[in-house]
Amino acid sequence: MIKAGIIGGAGYTGGELIRLLINHPDVEIAYVNSSSNAGNYVYEVHTDLFGDTDLRFTSEVSTDIDVIFLCVAHGDAKKFLAANPMPSSVKIVDLSQDFRIKGTSPEGTGFVYGLPEINKQAIQTATQIANPGCFATCLQLGLLPLAANGLLTDELHITGVTGSTGAGQKPTTSTHFSWRSNNLSVYKAFEHQHLKEITQSVVQLQPDYKHSINFIPYRGDFARGIIANIHTKFSGTEEEAVELYQKFYAGQPFTHVSTQNIDLKQVVNTNKCLVHVEKHGEYLLVMSIIDNLLKGASGQAVQNMNLMFGIPETAGLKLKPVAF
Amino acid sequence: MIKAGIIGGAGYTGGELIRLLINHPDVEIAYVNSSSNAGNYVYEVHTDLFGDTDLRFTSEVSTDIDVIFLCVAHGDAKKFLAANPMPSSVKIVDLSQDFRIKGTSPEGTGFVYGLPEINKQAIQTATQIANPGCFATCLQLGLLPLAANGLLTDELHITGVTGSTGAGQKPTTSTHFSWRSNNLSVYKAFEHQHLKEITQSVVQLQPDYKHSINFIPYRGDFARGIIANIHTKFSGTEEEAVELYQKFYAGQPFTHVSTQNIDLKQVVNTNKCLVHVEKHGEYLLVMSIIDNLLKGASGQAVQNMNLMFGIPETAGLKLKPVAF
Amino acid sequence: MIKAGIIGGAGYTGGELIRLLINHPDVEIAYVNSSSNAGNYVYEVHTDLFGDTDLRFTSEVSTDIDVIFLCVAHGDAKKFLAANPMPSSVKIVDLSQDFRIKGTSPEGTGFVYGLPEINKQAIQTATQIANPGCFATCLQLGLLPLAANGLLTDELHITGVTGSTGAGQKPTTSTHFSWRSNNLSVYKAFEHQHLKEITQSVVQLQPDYKHSINFIPYRGDFARGIIANIHTKFSGTEEEAVELYQKFYAGQPFTHVSTQNIDLKQVVNTNKCLVHVEKHGEYLLVMSIIDNLLKGASGQAVQNMNLMFGIPETAGLKLKPVAF
Amino acid sequence: MIKAGIIGGAGYTGGELIRLLINHPDVEIAYVNSSSNAGNYVYEVHTDLFGDTDLRFTSEVSTDIDVIFLCVAHGDAKKFLAANPMPSSVKIVDLSQDFRIKGTSPEGTGFVYGLPEINKQAIQTATQIANPGCFATCLQLGLLPLAANGLLTDELHITGVTGSTGAGQKPTTSTHFSWRSNNLSVYKAFEHQHLKEITQSVVQLQPDYKHSINFIPYRGDFARGIIANIHTKFSGTEEEAVELYQKFYAGQPFTHVSTQNIDLKQVVNTNKCLVHVEKHGEYLLVMSIIDNLLKGASGQAVQNMNLMFGIPETAGLKLKPVAF
Repeated sequence: MIKAGIIGGAGYTGGELIRLLINHPDVEIAYVNSSSNAGNYVYEVHTDLFGDTDLRFTSEVSTDIDVIFLCVAHGDAKKFLAANPMPSSVKIVDLSQDFRIKGTSPEGTGFVYGLPEINKQAIQTATQIANPGCFATCLQLGLLPLAANGLLTDELHITGVTGSTGAGQKPTTSTHFSWRSNNLSVYKAFEHQHLKEITQSVVQLQPDYKHSINFIPYRGDFARGIIANIHTKFSGTEEEAVELYQKFYAGQPFTHVSTQNIDLKQVVNTNKCLVHVEKHGEYLLVMSIIDNLLKGASGQAVQNMNLMFGIPETAGLKLKPVAF
Repeated sequence: MIKAGIIGGAGYTGGELIRLLINHPDVEIAYVNSSSNAGNYVYEVHTDLFGDTDLRFTSEVSTDIDVIFLCVAHGDAKKFLAANPMPSSVKIVDLSQDFRIKGTSPEGTGFVYGLPEINKQAIQTATQIANPGCFATCLQLGLLPLAANGLLTDELHITGVTGSTGAGQKPTTSTHFSWRSNNLSVYKAFEHQHLKEITQSVVQLQPDYKHSINFIPYRGDFARGIIANIHTKFSGTEEEAVELYQKFYAGQPFTHVSTQNIDLKQVVNTNKCLVHVEKHGEYLLVMSIIDNLLKGASGQAVQNMNLMFGIPETAGLKLKPVAF
Repeated sequence: MIKAGIIGGAGYTGGELIRLLINHPDVEIAYVNSSSNAGNYVYEVHTDLFGDTDLRFTSEVSTDIDVIFLCVAHGDAKKFLAANPMPSSVKIVDLSQDFRIKGTSPEGTGFVYGLPEINKQAIQTATQIANPGCFATCLQLGLLPLAANGLLTDELHITGVTGSTGAGQKPTTSTHFSWRSNNLSVYKAFEHQHLKEITQSVVQLQPDYKHSINFIPYRGDFARGIIANIHTKFSGTEEEAVELYQKFYAGQPFTHVSTQNIDLKQVVNTNKCLVHVEKHGEYLLVMSIIDNLLKGASGQAVQNMNLMFGIPETAGLKLKPVAF
Repeated sequence: MIKAGIIGGAGYTGGELIRLLINHPDVEIAYVNSSSNAGNYVYEVHTDLFGDTDLRFTSEVSTDIDVIFLCVAHGDAKKFLAANPMPSSVKIVDLSQDFRIKGTSPEGTGFVYGLPEINKQAIQTATQIANPGCFATCLQLGLLPLAANGLLTDELHITGVTGSTGAGQKPTTSTHFSWRSNNLSVYKAFEHQHLKEITQSVVQLQPDYKHSINFIPYRGDFARGIIANIHTKFSGTEEEAVELYQKFYAGQPFTHVSTQNIDLKQVVNTNKCLVHVEKHGEYLLVMSIIDNLLKGASGQAVQNMNLMFGIPETAGLKLKPVAF
């Protein structure tokens, strides 16, 4: 059994990771760290786990583990590792954005960007994973088949809508139910922080890509999921696009190309990404959907762990969709 | 024109009052007081009013007005009036619970409980109004026709569900969208603070009522509205009950008896209350619905003001329902 | 008093029109026609109107009226007018799409496209109005200030999300609550039927516009409202854009330019349109929001009627926003 | 491997059963019958299963299976079994209400009421299971610990709210998103069809129970889940009630007693039931929550299958909660 430690277990991604790992056939949770909740039962914070686990939060950080998941705020992963150096025997999966961009810090050198659809081999031999952002995952899985074939020849026009869990657990004005229900609003238009990691991956696959990525993110009036529409110029036919996408994702257990129109709830509470392409005039429209807390965070973290430890990529991730 | 001052204009009930008064044919808003927002435009807080008003919040409290509305937290109305004594020329409508219960404080002596369906004449000659609570309004309008006829002969069994705006503007755990969407939960079962004012009105109409009122309130996963079901033993027929309710509410412009089943959205964004009765075995089931911010707060406050000033009871309150 | 007849009064836009007209100070409803509901009370279909009106549906079509509103399915307005010729004394407001596109039919010759922000003078002297589509209204109000200044120099990239009431009253798979709640999906990408009327208006203001309008419409998981983001190349500054938009909408009672970010619920249950512009790199981002049933349908129909009859443009349209 | 056949696989409970069985470690789906969808892929109807299964619907009914699940409309299970007699080697789990009430039909003689918390031993040796109704499950699990101890000494007062999936897949007026979102309404008050099976179980445990069960069901504005509040007179203390409930559910893998207040989303997308009790005056308040499609239908059906085949009761039912 893989012994796993979780840092920052009281937040949304930490809770989702616990939900996955308590049913993972090859993992046992060694501890769930949350300094502010130390001593409390995990189900006192993640109340849906009542009856499923008697784990308690701890403030300790043991290194007698095989893998550690960092479910901490952006900036805190670096601080944590500086304060708590991990022995080389402990694999690291960081869910923050601290190590996603290469070359920005010497500490980040050993981190592999954990998007299995493009970096599977590197992940399998990695010991340190920078887990991708949620919007970043959704958009890249819509874009990368084109980049891999050198077919991103023009600007990208993207609108995406994210669920409220993407904004974290702290109650704020924009997550207040009275405001957010039945409401939509744009934030960080053209300036979302995930554009950096998206660009990095696009350039990894298509080094000459120099066009802009025009991305307009929305706050959605639902709790889970991301849906994005991307359009860009594409000289081929719809059939060629479908074939290109299907080929790129052949063998990927979680990312699939639907020839039918897709809707967000097809993937909620799963680790899947569905993409769908349509040709309209000179444009290719690509739709992409994920669950932001699963394929966009904790699910992908487990997928990366599975790959690092050489167990089946889908272990612990065959999840019942919520569907409704 | 009636000159109105609003204290606590940045909260939910304050905002709703502004929405009503800016279109009221007989009222001009003299000022909207909010110490924390003084100098800011009203539409910076109540952003739906952008384009409708250029009012700014002020920290001043002028007494050169005809009526003052206190949209403040419970306990703060008493404090405000102690610190800012109003001349007898200024009528007062207090939306807090500070003066709802008679006999509890000498300061409250002059306040009339502002439920027009039972106290219309007293309201018309009053200068100080204690505006009823939201659940209190919904439940009383379901109960009082029975009390008025001495027909509350047994316990009352009540369940009610309230929208998130009932919990106020401050972001909290139980108003976080991620938690509250698609969720229901009970709070303050059997102990809701509005039971006192409900009991007071029941006893006003039926002095010998001594049974318990078993009330289970729910937090609803919608922003506006209250729906409640009440059942109690009733020896008459359904037809007798319908007639009794229709007679009691005859001539009331906002409270109506539906012989068809009712649903919450029939009254959202209106000052109406709809009630519906059905007989089942020895029980009478009464359904009652209101908009918690209108008939349950600011709408009823305007209705009371209309009555006090001798203008049509419906002035400024013929509102388009949201319907969907 | 203006005597109004309503054809197709049992549907969503018909109901919304009734909600507006029963409180309109200058209008009396002569009749509400609905063949399938003839004889029934209006509140039996539009149950939120219980207590507000005792009107009944009729199957008759009197011409003893001043204005007739056609709230019928696309294609049925032409048929209705062919079967029921209106005397020239009766003004017509058609909410279907039958007469929106000029030059497509001889019957449509006399119809003025009822978007007051560009055609106010023509509307004031018109006797026949083709009321714009909901998405068409929202998008045009975001675009037309640029077109009016000849500044649409490149393609338009648009994503918009509409509420479920846009899909009409008939229960279908894509309006089933179990499917639509917490869900988003694209439909009619690049092919929405409103593109024709949008293009017509753009070319009216900027005759040389020849670029494509890339529009991706979404089904939203809310009942009311449309929000759209538009981006297009713009060589001026953000300040210049703001000024240009403010100048274009100066004096318009319902359409306003917000310098703050906007969110959908600011306009729900009102006849307003709010637009907001931001400059990002070489792009201008324009956000536009309306209530699809009001400014996008029945509210704008009343606005057009007001203009045709020379009464205040805002008569009957000072609506309390739902806000939450 | 247990070979399972599913009849009526295109509906909500059929779909949910497929979602469970494709990941069940001991089951293979032999076929999914749906005459109207024969030949189509399962994921064409249950689109969330795209990428998870290549099963197709069939119109055939093979008896070369170990267990058959009847996910058909009420009344159709009897008809199906009459037209398609199953050999004694095929165990039957009927999700309709056809065989839930004993003694009403000779055909129903062999059916065991499949509520494991009271009938586990009988289920383990049964070959035919009548799977309980959704409201019936939720309410019984709130009530039966009292009945088992002879402590139901007075009437029961119950209000419950169910998700829209309880109303089935067919689009109707009361499942139209525009109507149901943000809305609540009562239906079948005091007359819900599940009262029969609830009473049957109560009397099984407490044969002298003769009081009425006053049940007011609501249509909720969410897709999944049931929450119910029950109050009845109880002479013991809260501590005694908690102990009594904990003792009754000791060893039950899915039903747990929470000493903290509970909210609906704690159990959504799980097979769990959580109950919580509080003493108020002479009343015991019991809260009970389930997912209507899982513990209230297909999840409990799998639980019953597990028991009948002697495999672990939780096999295939350790589900990740949706939580948000």
